[in-house]
Amino acid sequence: MKKIAILGSTGSIGTQTLEVVRNNPKLQVVALAAGKSVEQMEQQIREFHPLIAGMWSEEAAADLRSRVADLPVKVVTGMDGLLEIAVMPEAQVLVTAIVGMIGIRPTIAAIEAGKDIALANKETLVTAGHIIMPLAAKMGVKILPVDSEHSAIFQSLNGEPKGRIEKILLTASGGPFRGKTREQLQNIQVEDALKHPNWSMGRKITIDSSTLVNKGLEVMEAKWLFGVDLDQIQVIVHPQSIIHSAVQYVDGAVIAQLGTPDMKLPIQYALFYPDRRPMPGRRLDFYELAQVTFEKPDMETFYGLKLAYDAQRIGGSMPTVYNAANEKAVGLFLDRKIAYLQIPELIQEAMEQHKVIENPNVEEILETEASVYRYIDGKGF
Amino acid sequence: MKKIAILGSTGSIGTQTLEVVRNNPKLQVVALAAGKSVEQMEQQIREFHPLIAGMWSEEAAADLRSRVADLPVKVVTGMDGLLEIAVMPEAQVLVTAIVGMIGIRPTIAAIEAGKDIALANKETLVTAGHIIMPLAAKMGVKILPVDSEHSAIFQSLNGEPKGRIEKILLTASGGPFRGKTREQLQNIQVEDALKHPNWSMGRKITIDSSTLVNKGLEVMEAKWLFGVDLDQIQVIVHPQSIIHSAVQYVDGAVIAQLGTPDMKLPIQYALFYPDRRPMPGRRLDFYELAQVTFEKPDMETFYGLKLAYDAQRIGGSMPTVYNAANEKAVGLFLDRKIAYLQIPELIQEAMEQHKVIENPNVEEILETEASVYRYIDGKGF
Repeated sequence: MKKIAILGSTGSIGTQTLEVVRNNPKLQVVALAAGKSVEQMEQQIREFHPLIAGMWSEEAAADLRSRVADLPVKVVTGMDGLLEIAVMPEAQVLVTAIVGMIGIRPTIAAIEAGKDIALANKETLVTAGHIIMPLAAKMGVKILPVDSEHSAIFQSLNGEPKGRIEKILLTASGGPFRGKTREQLQNIQVEDALKHPNWSMGRKITIDSSTLVNKGLEVMEAKWLFGVDLDQIQVIVHPQSIIHSAVQYVDGAVIAQLGTPDMKLPIQYALFYPDRRPMPGRRLDFYELAQVTFEKPDMETFYGLKLAYDAQRIGGSMPTVYNAANEKAVGLFLDRKIAYLQIPELIQEAMEQHKVIENPNVEEILETEASVYRYIDGKGF
Repeated sequence: MKKIAILGSTGSIGTQTLEVVRNNPKLQVVALAAGKSVEQMEQQIREFHPLIAGMWSEEAAADLRSRVADLPVKVVTGMDGLLEIAVMPEAQVLVTAIVGMIGIRPTIAAIEAGKDIALANKETLVTAGHIIMPLAAKMGVKILPVDSEHSAIFQSLNGEPKGRIEKILLTASGGPFRGKTREQLQNIQVEDALKHPNWSMGRKITIDSSTLVNKGLEVMEAKWLFGVDLDQIQVIVHPQSIIHSAVQYVDGAVIAQLGTPDMKLPIQYALFYPDRRPMPGRRLDFYELAQVTFEKPDMETFYGLKLAYDAQRIGGSMPTVYNAANEKAVGLFLDRKIAYLQIPELIQEAMEQHKVIENPNVEEILETEASVYRYIDGKGF
């Protein structure tokens, strides 16, 4: 029996993680945490019987407490709640499917408590990879990637030592605007940007996918996860999203993971690694597939990707600036306060005005984020 | 230092194996054997200093002895020579790059002597898989595939247990006549059939590739090598030969090995498995590649592939009949004695007239081959 705690259980990755649990009697949920979806959390508690349930807001927690008063579940709240879940002795694996910087502290706490991390929180490695990876190595815990691309790389590695990697081939669908010029992107509306060709995801990540900023964040994550240099990571636009990513080895062999777009695969792989367990679902049909294509990303039009390489090359607190500025800009775009092309513009501006902190600690990372928020708020959109 | 003996050192796989040795100071050649290319063997001896050198013919051996009289190499001959090399205590790995049924006895002898086998001899598993695989398991020796497709599967497995395999996806270029109708194949000449689109190989295997008989033999080999059922092996025509083959796992994930067409990769992988060592050479360029395609094999026109599934399903001595009839028929075609379409016709005829021997021993396998030869010779082309 593998005991897991899930931060972000009502989100897209969280609910799919619970679907994996539903299909695997060898998985047991010991804790769940969410933001404010009280009703959904109550349902999850009644189905999965966790020992602890966390709600981010005090109000939601109070509501939940009265709803599940008949059950022996402990309801916790806020960052203290997340931290309690992160270190609870009953859990072996922490699934960090929570969105945003609030994922960092619980992740660090869980690693320090010797838990393996099934990592779905992008911010963790983007902003604090220099803290997380050495700590995980020191504690001997595994950082198991839960998104499609990094899981594909992880599967393609299957234990091969990093010294054998020549290059990581990170595939990208190219998003809905692939092939468009910057001019054509000028009048993009929220509705256009929310149409992703292959994956059904949350709103923010769908926009990030259309700007290639999502791929930029994945490049940063890959650098930390697999311990390679930035110039060992090549982004390949592959609109059919069949090859989920690949590794090129020192002997020239490329090992790739392919599949249908189903997030339950990387989730299950992370939870049972190094074992693979049966999973029902649609299979790839190569006869039907007929053809797949590859192209170079257009880093001039979609320069959010180029900015990611720049930010990571500068290092220190700069990746945090990149991430925070993007988060803020996407929020403004979704609120129809700025135009589509202002997203990379704001990232670039925020990066330009930032004074880099080398090797920032968690305080400094959080302060960097706050300062970027203040900077963009100050522009008064 | 890994010590290897090579049977078939002057052939295509043999010379490429020596190129791998040349680039790897950790490999040492302790024996070489060839058919009758005395001059080439002399050069190889002077470069690689084996302890034993074998020539198939007595005459060639006598010639070689006088040529290398100044060197401390022992020259052996015939099957006794091959068997002596197979069991020599100095060797750890036997590379069986020899063509034809004469590879079987030395392979069995080497396994019994505890040597790992780098297997490039097709006939071994096609005709005697039911003897070889249990023997290898009993002796705890590895059977390391050295052709492109099986190595790709082996690399995609990277140690995963066979219980995790759902399907093996065996790719095929489709050969130079892909898309042609049977009518269009009627007047195919030897020159046409010798043009392979992607790989430069020997004459016989190039013809086999054009008829899909080569793929049929590979299906049989895959069945034995990876311990799967015949209906778990799917042939996918993939004209660009970029994906060298793949494994679909029980969770739906497909792991594939891709690369440029270079036989030195599977050879080196087999010799150093489970380690990967650096190898120079051209890398896959996905940007340049632009697109790859997949289609279903046309098993009606190229029914040599269908016959392979039939032969393997019947089992016993039938795969030997398939292989022997094809060998004979291809020889006749290359000698311009029969038409191209008579190749599968002769295989089918030979299979139809054969009375199956269940679980044949090596004697019976060799007798089956001889009987097929007699049958086709009797037709007086």
